[in-house]
Amino acid sequence: MDAETKLIQRIARAIPSEMGAGKGRGRAPGGLRLGIGNDGAVLAPSGRTEWVLSCDAFLEGVHFLADRHPADSVGFKSLARATSDLAAMGAAPRYFLLTLALPLGRTGAWLDDFLRGMAKASRQLGIRLIGGDTKRHASVAISITVLGEIAPGRAVTRAGARPGDILYVSGKLGRAELGLRMVKSGALKRGKRGLKSQSLLLEQHFYPRIRVGLGTWLARHRIPSAMMDISDGLSTDLGRLCAASGVGARVWAERIPCVEIPSAGPGSLKRLKLDPLQLALHGGDDYELLFAVSPRKVKQLRMVPGFSSLTAIGEVERGNKVVLVGADGRATRLVSGGWDPFREK
Amino acid sequence: MDAETKLIQRIARAIPSEMGAGKGRGRAPGGLRLGIGNDGAVLAPSGRTEWVLSCDAFLEGVHFLADRHPADSVGFKSLARATSDLAAMGAAPRYFLLTLALPLGRTGAWLDDFLRGMAKASRQLGIRLIGGDTKRHASVAISITVLGEIAPGRAVTRAGARPGDILYVSGKLGRAELGLRMVKSGALKRGKRGLKSQSLLLEQHFYPRIRVGLGTWLARHRIPSAMMDISDGLSTDLGRLCAASGVGARVWAERIPCVEIPSAGPGSLKRLKLDPLQLALHGGDDYELLFAVSPRKVKQLRMVPGFSSLTAIGEVERGNKVVLVGADGRATRLVSGGWDPFREK
Repeated sequence: MDAETKLIQRIARAIPSEMGAGKGRGRAPGGLRLGIGNDGAVLAPSGRTEWVLSCDAFLEGVHFLADRHPADSVGFKSLARATSDLAAMGAAPRYFLLTLALPLGRTGAWLDDFLRGMAKASRQLGIRLIGGDTKRHASVAISITVLGEIAPGRAVTRAGARPGDILYVSGKLGRAELGLRMVKSGALKRGKRGLKSQSLLLEQHFYPRIRVGLGTWLARHRIPSAMMDISDGLSTDLGRLCAASGVGARVWAERIPCVEIPSAGPGSLKRLKLDPLQLALHGGDDYELLFAVSPRKVKQLRMVPGFSSLTAIGEVERGNKVVLVGADGRATRLVSGGWDPFREK
Repeated sequence: MDAETKLIQRIARAIPSEMGAGKGRGRAPGGLRLGIGNDGAVLAPSGRTEWVLSCDAFLEGVHFLADRHPADSVGFKSLARATSDLAAMGAAPRYFLLTLALPLGRTGAWLDDFLRGMAKASRQLGIRLIGGDTKRHASVAISITVLGEIAPGRAVTRAGARPGDILYVSGKLGRAELGLRMVKSGALKRGKRGLKSQSLLLEQHFYPRIRVGLGTWLARHRIPSAMMDISDGLSTDLGRLCAASGVGARVWAERIPCVEIPSAGPGSLKRLKLDPLQLALHGGDDYELLFAVSPRKVKQLRMVPGFSSLTAIGEVERGNKVVLVGADGRATRLVSGGWDPFREK
C-alpha cells in the first residue's frame, strides 16, 4: 500500500467518517452513497431538503503559529470555523471534505494531536468526514469544505435586512481576540494551575464554540431577515450584512456585549491595556451570530433556547451608513477595523 | 467596501460564476438557489440525480514553480485536475468552490493571468464558480472543491473490477511527465518559434485535457466495472484500483501507449535520456482514464466517440499482484513508482 493511501486510512480511522461503500449499491443515512476511498464522494439527495456548501482555509503563519497553538486546537478550530458558515445560514452540519497539506515532519505526533482535536469538533458538531486530499507542503495548510442540510427555502442570507429590524448578536464579543492577544504577547502563566485559570479566557480562541443549535432554530422558525457569523469582527461583518441588504444600521456602544477582562488575570494582561469595546468591535474569530429580526417577530424570538445569551445591539436603518452611538450620545461612522487580509497597510 | 469583498467580486467577474440570488427565492438551472456572496452556496437538488464531490489542492513549490509556470497555466490546471475526479466517476461537472491563498504581491497582474486561465478551464469543462474563500499567505495555495451530477447509481467507483475484465487507458501516458522534465531541466527553447514547436510537448503539463466526455459516456452506458483517473502515475493508480477491487492485474509493456519523444525536439531533450515506458508507467499528471471492462461489454465500448484513442493494456486477474509483462515475455512485479507525497525517500 502506498504511503498516501496509508495516511488517508489513518485520518479516516481517527475522525468520525464514512468510508467507501464497496460497490456502492446501498444508501447510507443522510443521502450518502459513497464516502472516502474513491475519486469523489457520492450523495443521493432526497429532493426534500436543500444543501448548503462552504469552504474555509486555515493556514500556518496566518491563522495559527506552530509554536504557540497546540495541534489539537488547530484540528478543532479549523473544522469549527468552517462549520460556523453552515450555522450562519441555519443549516444542520452533515459532512465535510478535508484538504490537508503538511510537512513530512508533522505526520507523526503532531498529526495524531491534530486529528484528535478535529475528531472532537466533528463529534460535537455532528459533521462527518466523507473525502478530501492530502499533500506534502513546507507548512501546514488546511482547507475544509462543509455540507449542511436545510428545509427548502429556509437558508438565511445576508441580504434580507429591512429598515426597522432589530440587530442581535449571540454571546460576548472580543473573547477570541483577547485570547489571541494573550497568546501573541506571551501573557500566559505557565504550569498547570496557570493554564487552568486562563483556560476560560483562551477557550474561544483555541476551541471556539459554534452556534449550530441557535442558527438552525432561528432558520427553522423563520425568525431572522438576515444572518451571518462574526468571523472578521463586528465592524467588518455588520458592514457586509448591511451592504448585502442595501441598508444602513445604528448600533449602541453601551449595548454591545463585550468580553470581560478579569482584574485577577495574569499580571501581564493589564500591561496590554486592552479596551473591551475595541476588542468587541474589531476582534475576529468569535463565530457568534449576528442577525436582524423584524419587530413583529421579537416575541417569537423569546422562545429560542438560550434567549438570555442574545443581545439587541441596534437597529437597521435606511441608507448605507453604519453608525456607532457612544455613551455620550454622539454618533460616529463605524469603520471596518476587523480582519481583512487584503487591505494594504 | 472592504478589500476582501472587492477581491471576491473581481474573481466572480473574471470566472463564469453564479452570484447570490438576492433574497434567494428563485431557482437557477441545475438546482442552484444561491451562489457567491453569502456564508455558503445553496443547492436545491431535484432528487432525480446524485451529486459527486471531490477536492484537490494545488500548491506553489509542490505542484508548480512561480518562475517556471505561467500564472494562466496555474489557474487552468488547478481547476482541470480537480474536475478530472468527476470525469473519473462519470459525473458531469456543474459547480466549484475556490479556496485561494496568495501573497499581496500576486493580487495584481499575476492574479489576472491566473483568473484568465481558470476562466478558460471553466468554460471548457462546463463548471461554474459558486463560492470559496480568499486568504493572504506567503505562497500561493489553491484548493478546489468540485461538484458533479450523475444519474442515480451510475457513479463508477474503483472497487468493481473482476478477474477477466480488460484494462483500458485513454490517450498516451507520460506526456505530462515529459513536459515536467523539460520545464525542470530548462530544456526549453526560448523565443516564439521555440515555444510554438514545443507547445504540443508541453500542452498536457501546462493545460491538461480532461476526459469529461469519455467518462460521462462510459458511466451513462454502464460500460466500466471500475474506473479512475491517472493522476499519480499508472503504476501507483493501477495498484490503487486493484486494491480497492480486491484483484490483481497483468499489463503488457508493449501495449502501453507511451508518449512519443520527438527526435527533432530541443537538443537538450536528448541529453535527458528519457525512457518513454518509464515516463508512461510512473509519470503523474496525465489525467487519462484507466478503467476495467467485462469482455461481454467490449462490443458496446466500440461505440464510444473517440474509441480509437483507447488502448487495452492488460487484464484483471485473481489475487492481489500487479505484474508487468516485458517484451521478452518475462513478468515482473509492477511496483508503485508514481507520485506519492508521503513516501519517505
